[in-house]
Amino acid sequence: MKEIDRQMDFILEIDKLKNVFRQSLISDGSRHENDAEHSWHLCMIAIIFEDYADNDTDILKCIKMMLIHDIVEIYAGDTYLYDEDGYNDKEQREKNAAEKIYGILGEKQKNMFIDLWNEFDEGKTKEAVFANILDRIEPIMLNYITKGKMWLKHGIHKKQVIDKSWRVFELAHPDISEYMMRIVDESVEKGYLLP
Amino acid sequence: MKEIDRQMDFILEIDKLKNVFRQSLISDGSRHENDAEHSWHLCMIAIIFEDYADNDTDILKCIKMMLIHDIVEIYAGDTYLYDEDGYNDKEQREKNAAEKIYGILGEKQKNMFIDLWNEFDEGKTKEAVFANILDRIEPIMLNYITKGKMWLKHGIHKKQVIDKSWRVFELAHPDISEYMMRIVDESVEKGYLLP
Repeated sequence: MKEIDRQMDFILEIDKLKNVFRQSLISDGSRHENDAEHSWHLCMIAIIFEDYADNDTDILKCIKMMLIHDIVEIYAGDTYLYDEDGYNDKEQREKNAAEKIYGILGEKQKNMFIDLWNEFDEGKTKEAVFANILDRIEPIMLNYITKGKMWLKHGIHKKQVIDKSWRVFELAHPDISEYMMRIVDESVEKGYLLP
Repeated sequence: MKEIDRQMDFILEIDKLKNVFRQSLISDGSRHENDAEHSWHLCMIAIIFEDYADNDTDILKCIKMMLIHDIVEIYAGDTYLYDEDGYNDKEQREKNAAEKIYGILGEKQKNMFIDLWNEFDEGKTKEAVFANILDRIEPIMLNYITKGKMWLKHGIHKKQVIDKSWRVFELAHPDISEYMMRIVDESVEKGYLLP
């Protein structure tokens, strides 16, 4: 099989990410957000916030991570951030999914994508830290603008948001972390999030 | 107004791209594709096809172009590629939209995004050529996989596809252009596209 045939098959297969729905609602509250548009939104935030990243952060690498970070969910499904049970077998489910979907590609590209995804998941390198920060900003903003509908549905408390998104509050540029803390506090005040 | 406030307002405003629908159907044919997920898909194709780009093509710049190339449609609406009437006032509608939406940002970022968008639209630089090629590959693939439902609905002929996507067939890497020509020919043979 030629490389281009494998690549085109992969391009068609990942179209299914447009049908993987997240807990977040889009900003007008009309429906749930899907993983493909979520990934686009993160990349947009990356280029808007480029100047807030640590010096020498490779933004192209961050963007690649964010483009692919949810692709395993095509087979493994979306696991809600606050679903502790779902997180028990998440690692194995997603590992199998990665082998299957990236296996459509040739060995070189398969390994490149799996390495990028693992790096994002471990969240240790500069690029992975920045990408993980952006991955948490977007759902908080969407929850805020939709008056916390999904937070309230799942009975989420402020402490859970802070704990799960600790990188936003501890590692992000102060302009970002202060803004996000304001949004969280305002959400509690307005009754969108439990105290 | 602080820079971060403007940026966060912009991040929320562009969420509306998730509600701008295109003519293309997603691969299972269940619904129309929106601009946000389309933009994500183009960026994915960019990183998969990175090695087919001309030497020294700045892939980060291509990706930025593709992330933002449809944002003006939040106010200007999507114009179907084969709608000649719609194209008459497209330029002015989109120019006004660009001023309005990028005007949410500070002057520096506003100008950066408008410059990028103009460069994409003119389609002359290496990066703009590559981005324009990718922007045409995805809808052809989606039309093919959905058995030409939207091509047939609008009575589109093979010549129109070739003319509107000439960069794919004349400027893309031969592996890509040959593959795409095969898809177009197969679409005619199978009755997905008029001869």
